Amino acid sequence: MQPAFEAEFVAGLKEIFEERIVFNRLIGLRIDAVAAEGVSGHLPMRHELIGHYAHQRLHGGVISAGLDAMGGLAVMAAIGARHLDEPPAQRLQRFGKLGTIDLRIDYLRPAVGERFALHAEVLRLGSRVATTRMELRGAQDRLFATGAAAYIVS
Amino acid sequence: MQPAFEAEFVAGLKEIFEERIVFNRLIGLRIDAVAAEGVSGHLPMRHELIGHYAHQRLHGGVISAGLDAMGGLAVMAAIGARHLDEPPAQRLQRFGKLGTIDLRIDYLRPAVGERFALHAEVLRLGSRVATTRMELRGAQDRLFATGAAAYIVS
Amino acid sequence: MQPAFEAEFVAGLKEIFEERIVFNRLIGLRIDAVAAEGVSGHLPMRHELIGHYAHQRLHGGVISAGLDAMGGLAVMAAIGARHLDEPPAQRLQRFGKLGTIDLRIDYLRPAVGERFALHAEVLRLGSRVATTRMELRGAQDRLFATGAAAYIVS
Amino acid sequence: MQPAFEAEFVAGLKEIFEERIVFNRLIGLRIDAVAAEGVSGHLPMRHELIGHYAHQRLHGGVISAGLDAMGGLAVMAAIGARHLDEPPAQRLQRFGKLGTIDLRIDYLRPAVGERFALHAEVLRLGSRVATTRMELRGAQDRLFATGAAAYIVS
Repeated sequence: MQPAFEAEFVAGLKEIFEERIVFNRLIGLRIDAVAAEGVSGHLPMRHELIGHYAHQRLHGGVISAGLDAMGGLAVMAAIGARHLDEPPAQRLQRFGKLGTIDLRIDYLRPAVGERFALHAEVLRLGSRVATTRMELRGAQDRLFATGAAAYIVS
Repeated sequence: MQPAFEAEFVAGLKEIFEERIVFNRLIGLRIDAVAAEGVSGHLPMRHELIGHYAHQRLHGGVISAGLDAMGGLAVMAAIGARHLDEPPAQRLQRFGKLGTIDLRIDYLRPAVGERFALHAEVLRLGSRVATTRMELRGAQDRLFATGAAAYIVS
Repeated sequence: MQPAFEAEFVAGLKEIFEERIVFNRLIGLRIDAVAAEGVSGHLPMRHELIGHYAHQRLHGGVISAGLDAMGGLAVMAAIGARHLDEPPAQRLQRFGKLGTIDLRIDYLRPAVGERFALHAEVLRLGSRVATTRMELRGAQDRLFATGAAAYIVS
Repeated sequence: MQPAFEAEFVAGLKEIFEERIVFNRLIGLRIDAVAAEGVSGHLPMRHELIGHYAHQRLHGGVISAGLDAMGGLAVMAAIGARHLDEPPAQRLQRFGKLGTIDLRIDYLRPAVGERFALHAEVLRLGSRVATTRMELRGAQDRLFATGAAAYIVS
């Protein structure tokens, strides 16, 4: 069990992922929980996010963007836990070196609903590469999509 | 060499992929060429599409959304070529059954620039599943990202 | 909770996956449990399966082959549970239509050890496509690799 | 255009990839050409490599193993070209640090035939991560499978 993060660190990550990554703001990504063991967030449905007009379902690109962002956030949380000795501001600067290497998304079911829950966890954090696993769920915890991604971290 | 499509079919695909898929309009996806052998389009850079504020680079989610859309368009073009005996409107209705099964994106280099070119081709069109290969390039034809995706087609 | 399968059905799947798929026999894949909720097996380490001689670790190709096979087995179990009204022999014939569409493997850590445990579960079984998630673990349940795959099923 | 490699360097890579990686020898992988721009090899069909007995087709695991190996070889060739100032033996030692991060394989068509050609090229060689694209073809250059992989290189 990892210790909880300082409010300053969590607020800093929220600002980065919700506001400063402009495209995340465009899709409306909201962060709900940040821990070394995993991170959670959600996406409210909006007309602009529709992919297939005939089915009113969430665009696959919104799903991949949201899951990629959550994977990156999970890596930042794991890095944060590894460097608890550093002040929060210094830990947040490590985001400048984070980059997605590659991403796979499996679209299991049409993502229809008013709100989508996102979750990500780090499977391995190395000194140079981190690997994550992500999920997007709808009402009744129904699994809509899963993802896997690799990130460069140093 | 495949015959060229009717203007009505190409205009119909452009309307679907540029306008009716609302999220594609949000990211500004434009279709430039539609042929059975492959499809091309582009994305103009905009502030809203920034991923990493420190580097002014295109968000990975925009890349995955754009490449997924182009892969789907390539499949629609290949389906259109297979069903040239059908009137254009009937061929366009086949879009209603198209769905992305899964997607992989490799982010090779930071996507920085004013305009990004997208290309997709179908590697195999089966009766139930199609597989595509996609690319995103910048100025001087520099390769920024590649993708592979599987689609359900019937 | 799904009902348990008949011994005949499980024995049939074991024969297919351990013996008749010749390459699975070459790598020494053994099936330990078959249920609609998931399947388990293992691989004993052998000199022939070494990938990186300097590190005595399991070859990535053995990992991908083993995880692909387990994903396919998980799909067969899920199909078997869906068609419990059919006699076992008839259900086993459905294997003839199974095919891997695509596969992703994440190699998290060097797979070193004497025995590797494999597990797979079906995330979604559709009428035409199934998606699975797989894991390879070593001693102390250490996670070495994860996988995701899509299969054509009808 | 890159200069050709010394015979010693090419022979060293062949020994590593054909002999010392024991599993590659088991599947019968043969290297045909090694250049900074790409590498080629082939696999002769054998009974032991059959995946689906009903169709006499090459096992997906052999395909993924072969394509992963070729991707790694392509990375070694690209690294070799970057460090031409080093003696061949020293360049070959860089293999000790090579590792596959992740892999995607698309199985386009049943791989049936007597001999399969493999090809791989590096899309990007960074200081820490390399990304490759691979293909497996049969008679008449028919494309059976494609792959993409990321490798850790330093």
